[in-house]
Amino acid sequence: MSSEHNIPIAALRAACLSHGLDGYIIPRSDEYLGEYVPPCAERLAWISGFTGSAGLAIVLAGRAALFSDGRYTLQMEQQVDGKIWECRHIVEDKPEIWLRQAAAGKKIGYDPWTLSADMLARFTGLEMVPLSPNLVDTLWKDRPAPPTGPALVYPETHAGEPAAHKRRRLGAALAEAGQDAAILSDGASLAWLFNIRGTDLEFCPFALGYALLHQDGTAALFMAPEKITPQLRTHLGPQVVIAAPAALPGAIAGLAGKNVRYDPATQPAWFQTALTEAQARITPGPDPVSLPRARKNPTEQAGARAAHLRDGVAMVEFLAWAATALPKGTQTELSASERLLACRAQQDLFRGESFPAISGAGENGAIIHYRVTAESNRAIRPDEVYLIDSGGQYLDGTTDITRTLWTGPSPAPAAVKAHATRVLAGTIALARAIFPEGLAGAHLDAFARQELWRAGLDYDHGTGHGVGAYLSVHEGPVSISRAARPVALAEGMILSDEPGYYLPGAYGIRMENLLLVQKASFADTKKPFLCFETLTLAPFDRALIDPALLPRESLDWLNGYHARVLAALSPRLSAGALSWLREATAPI
Amino acid sequence: MSSEHNIPIAALRAACLSHGLDGYIIPRSDEYLGEYVPPCAERLAWISGFTGSAGLAIVLAGRAALFSDGRYTLQMEQQVDGKIWECRHIVEDKPEIWLRQAAAGKKIGYDPWTLSADMLARFTGLEMVPLSPNLVDTLWKDRPAPPTGPALVYPETHAGEPAAHKRRRLGAALAEAGQDAAILSDGASLAWLFNIRGTDLEFCPFALGYALLHQDGTAALFMAPEKITPQLRTHLGPQVVIAAPAALPGAIAGLAGKNVRYDPATQPAWFQTALTEAQARITPGPDPVSLPRARKNPTEQAGARAAHLRDGVAMVEFLAWAATALPKGTQTELSASERLLACRAQQDLFRGESFPAISGAGENGAIIHYRVTAESNRAIRPDEVYLIDSGGQYLDGTTDITRTLWTGPSPAPAAVKAHATRVLAGTIALARAIFPEGLAGAHLDAFARQELWRAGLDYDHGTGHGVGAYLSVHEGPVSISRAARPVALAEGMILSDEPGYYLPGAYGIRMENLLLVQKASFADTKKPFLCFETLTLAPFDRALIDPALLPRESLDWLNGYHARVLAALSPRLSAGALSWLREATAPI
Repeated sequence: MSSEHNIPIAALRAACLSHGLDGYIIPRSDEYLGEYVPPCAERLAWISGFTGSAGLAIVLAGRAALFSDGRYTLQMEQQVDGKIWECRHIVEDKPEIWLRQAAAGKKIGYDPWTLSADMLARFTGLEMVPLSPNLVDTLWKDRPAPPTGPALVYPETHAGEPAAHKRRRLGAALAEAGQDAAILSDGASLAWLFNIRGTDLEFCPFALGYALLHQDGTAALFMAPEKITPQLRTHLGPQVVIAAPAALPGAIAGLAGKNVRYDPATQPAWFQTALTEAQARITPGPDPVSLPRARKNPTEQAGARAAHLRDGVAMVEFLAWAATALPKGTQTELSASERLLACRAQQDLFRGESFPAISGAGENGAIIHYRVTAESNRAIRPDEVYLIDSGGQYLDGTTDITRTLWTGPSPAPAAVKAHATRVLAGTIALARAIFPEGLAGAHLDAFARQELWRAGLDYDHGTGHGVGAYLSVHEGPVSISRAARPVALAEGMILSDEPGYYLPGAYGIRMENLLLVQKASFADTKKPFLCFETLTLAPFDRALIDPALLPRESLDWLNGYHARVLAALSPRLSAGALSWLREATAPI
Repeated sequence: MSSEHNIPIAALRAACLSHGLDGYIIPRSDEYLGEYVPPCAERLAWISGFTGSAGLAIVLAGRAALFSDGRYTLQMEQQVDGKIWECRHIVEDKPEIWLRQAAAGKKIGYDPWTLSADMLARFTGLEMVPLSPNLVDTLWKDRPAPPTGPALVYPETHAGEPAAHKRRRLGAALAEAGQDAAILSDGASLAWLFNIRGTDLEFCPFALGYALLHQDGTAALFMAPEKITPQLRTHLGPQVVIAAPAALPGAIAGLAGKNVRYDPATQPAWFQTALTEAQARITPGPDPVSLPRARKNPTEQAGARAAHLRDGVAMVEFLAWAATALPKGTQTELSASERLLACRAQQDLFRGESFPAISGAGENGAIIHYRVTAESNRAIRPDEVYLIDSGGQYLDGTTDITRTLWTGPSPAPAAVKAHATRVLAGTIALARAIFPEGLAGAHLDAFARQELWRAGLDYDHGTGHGVGAYLSVHEGPVSISRAARPVALAEGMILSDEPGYYLPGAYGIRMENLLLVQKASFADTKKPFLCFETLTLAPFDRALIDPALLPRESLDWLNGYHARVLAALSPRLSAGALSWLREATAPI
C-alpha cells in the first residue's frame, strides 16, 4: 500500500512550499471532531495509507510522523511506508513535543476546523497558521463527495420529548448561566436537540452540521441544503432558522457583545477565532446538550429495553447456532459475524450495526480493537476461545454486547475458565453495585476489576462508555474508568460494563452488558441512591464459568439474570434456539 | 463566653480604622498553615471565642462572620455571640463570596503568613492589603509566648536514613527538575528532612520553622535560637546553615534569578510575594518532602510495627478492663479515655496521645469529631454503643485506632449489629484489597462503603488519611476518599481505614485500623500490584458482629486477623487481659 502514498505527500510538501509553510498537520478527525468520519474526510488515510480510527500526521519538508495509540501500533507499521513515516505512540511521544523538537519556531499550517482549541493550544513554540480550505482537499483529486442523504425526522414516539421543548429547556439553562447562545458541532447533539437522525456515517445515524442555540429556545441549523427535506422543514418549525454552512461565519459575526458558550475540548478551534473576531464573549464549557442527552427519558428508556429484547433474540439465535456450528470448525471469524448480522437483520426496526463487529478467535481475540478483514480472517477452530463484540442500531435504541465462547466440544481448560470467571465476576460486581448520587465512573471502576486484581490480572482499557439512544455507541460525557471525567452518574444514563482479560498470542475474554442507571429506593434513608438495570439479554457461556470462583452473591445474580433472559426471550425464539436457551440458562 | 469577646473585636475594628482598612481576615491557621497550632496562634479563638480546629473569621466595620465546616456548626453557635457573629458553613457559603457581597472593592487586611497563595487568590474583587505583624498580635495583651522547647535529634535507628542522605536525594530531584531550591514550611517536612522532632505542639512532635533546601543538598534552617541545642547543631552538620527566622527575608532576597519550588496550596503567601520581589523564578509544585516522607523506609515500617504491637497491648488491656467495667455503668467518657491513656503510658517509648481522644457514648458517638470536655462528659451506660477513637505517639511510630463496643450486659439489638457489621465489612474489604500500582485513594474508597451502600447507608467523611512516622497523625499527600488528591498509593505509605455509620441522637459506629501499603507478588504477572498489611492489633467487638451479614471471604479475614492479634499480643499481656483476649478472638 505504500508507494501510491508517495504522491500525496510530495504534493502536500509542494503545497506547503507555495503557502510559505514549513509543515502541515493532518488529524484523523474531521470538521465535526467526532469518532466516525465520512469517506470524504479520510484525509489521514489519503496522505499516509493508515486507516485506524484515531491518529494524526505531521508532514515537514524533510520528515513526516504518524501518531496513533497502542491499539494501532502494529497496523501503522503495516500500512505506511517506513521510509517516509516515523510511527509514534501518541501518548508516550506527544505530537506537539515531536514537532517542537523537529521544527521549533517554524510555520506550521493546520485546518482550524479539524483541531479543537484545546488541541491547538498544545502546539506552543511554533508559528501555527490556520488555512482554509483544508490543504489536503485542494490536492485530493478523487476525493469522495461529502454525504448528502436527507436528514430524517426522529418521531416523538421514540424521542420522548418535543424538540421545541428541549430547545426551551436548554435555552433556559443558558439564560440561567448568563449565556446568550451556545455553539453545537457534535452530530449527536444536533440529532438529540432537533429530534433528527441522518445517514452521513456508516454506524452512527448522524446528519452532520452545526447549530446555534439561543437562550430563548430558538436556534439556527447550518446543514447542506441537500439534506433538508420539506418534512424536516415542517418538523423544525419557525423557531429554527435553517441555513447552509456557508452562512455560519456571518451568523457568528452577528454575535458581537453576546456571551457565547463554546467547548474548547470538543469543538473546532475555528469557532474560538471567529467568536473572538466577532467580539463575542466566550464562556468555555461543555456542550450544553451532552448531559441532558446522556440522561435518557422514560420513552428512550423504554425504547432501549425494547431494542435490547430484539437484540437478545438475535444474539440467542446466533449463540444457539454457534453452539452447534463452532465445534465443527467449519466457520470463520467473518462467516460468524455475518451470521450474527443476519440474525439482527431479521429484527424489527434494525437499521444496521452500531460499530464494526469484533469477531476474534484464539489469539485474534487478544487484540482489543481487532477488526476482521479478508486478509486477517481465520477459521474458528474447535476447542478455543472465541470473542464476539458487536451491536445494533435500532430505531428505538442502540445495543452493544460482548460474549466470549468456548467453541468445544471438549471442556475448557481450568486456567481459561478461571480467567473468564474472574472477568464475569467483574461484570456482575459492577451490575450489582448500589451507590449514592454524586459518584463518577472513576469511583466505580475498581468493582469491575477486583477479582482480576486478586489474581494479579487486569485489562488495559476502560470498563464502560456511555451509549446513545439510536445514536453513537460511544457517547459522552460519562464513562467508567480510572481516568473518567468527574461527571456524576445520574438516572437514565446508559453505560457499558465490559471488563476483559487478554493473553497475547493466546486468547481474549470480554463480558459486556449495557446498564441503565436507575434510582434505588430504601425505606429508611433520605440520601438518594442509584443502581443499575441490566438492559442486555443473552446468557454467558457456562462452559467458561467456574462457580467456585464466583462469590455467592454473584452466582445468585447470574442465576437470576439467566432466568430473566429465558423468561423475556422464550416467547420470541425459534424452537431450536429456545431449547438451547433452556439449557444455557439452567441454574448453576 | 460571649461578652468577653466584645472587647477584642472592638479593638480590632479600631485598629482597622487606624490602618485605613475596611476589614481584616483571621484564619484558624498559623504561620505554618498546619492542622495544629500552639496557644500563641489561637487568634481565631481570641477574636471570636470559637475553639474548633478549622475556620476563618472576617471582621468588617458593621458585620463579622465566622466560617467553619459541618463538624462545627453547633459548636460555633454555642461558643460565639450571635449578636456579633454570623456563623456560616465554609463550604456552602464561601468566605470570599460573602466578603465580595459584603465589601466589594473595599480594603481588606490580612497576614500574608497565615494564608496560602491559593487561599489568598480566592479573594478577588477586593483590595487585599498584606499587614505584618499580625494585627491580632498587636492587640492581644496576654498572648502566650511562642513555644521555645528544644528541637530534638531523631536518631537514625528510628529514622532509617541519614538526614544528609535525604537532603542529597531530594536535592538531586530538584536538580533533575531544573529547580535550584525549594521552600519548606511544614513542620512534618522539617522533622523528616532533618531527622529532628520537637515539642512545639501538643499532639504532634514538630519543631516549627522554615527551611530552604538547595539542589546540592545543602540547606538553611530558620528556627527560633532557643530551640537550637549544641547536640542539634552537631547533628545537622556543616551542610545546614542555622539561622533565626528574622534572617529569612534576607535569604529569600538572595534567590534572585534562581528557580525556586514553592507550594501555593500549603505554604504562606508571604513566600510568593517575597520570591517575586527577589526576582526569583517560582515553580509551583507540591512540597518536595511530602511524597518521600509518605513512603516509609524499612526502619520506619519496622518502627510502625513495633509501636502498634505496644499500642495493641495497651488497647487490649483497656478493652479487657472495659468488658468488665462498662456493663456496670460506673464509668464516664472521660474516665474511660483516661484509663486508655494510662494503659498507653505504661508502654515503652510512649510520648503522648497523637490527638485528643474521641470518647463518645450513645448519641455522643454520632458526633463525628466529638471531643469530650468536663461539660459534655456523660456516663457510659449499660447496653449502649460506645465509640473510642484515639492514638499514641511513640518514639518509633504513630498510632490511630477506633473500636466501637456494645457495653452489655444484654446482647446488642439486631439493628445495631447490622449497622456495625456493615461498617466492619467495609474496614475488611479495604484491608483485603489488591490493586495495581498507579491507583489513588479515590479509586479505592468505594470498597469501604459498598456494604453500607447496599443498605442505603453511608458516612459523611473520608475513609482514610495518611499517618506519619512519629509525626502527625494526619499526614498528606495521600488519602482514601472520593475527593482524594490524584496521588498514587505506593509501597511504604501508611493510611487509616475507618468507615463508620452515625445515627444522630442515638449512636456512632467506626471501625479503624491502620494499613501499610506493601508490594503484592504474583507468579505470572509482570504488572506491579500492591496490597495492605494491617498494622493495628486489637480485636473487634464480637457482640456487634452478625456473621450472616459478612461475606465469607471477609469472615475468613476476620478470623485470621483475630488469630494474628492473639498470637502477637499474648506474650505481653496481663493474665486477665490474655484470658479475655482468648475469648474475644475465638473463631466466629
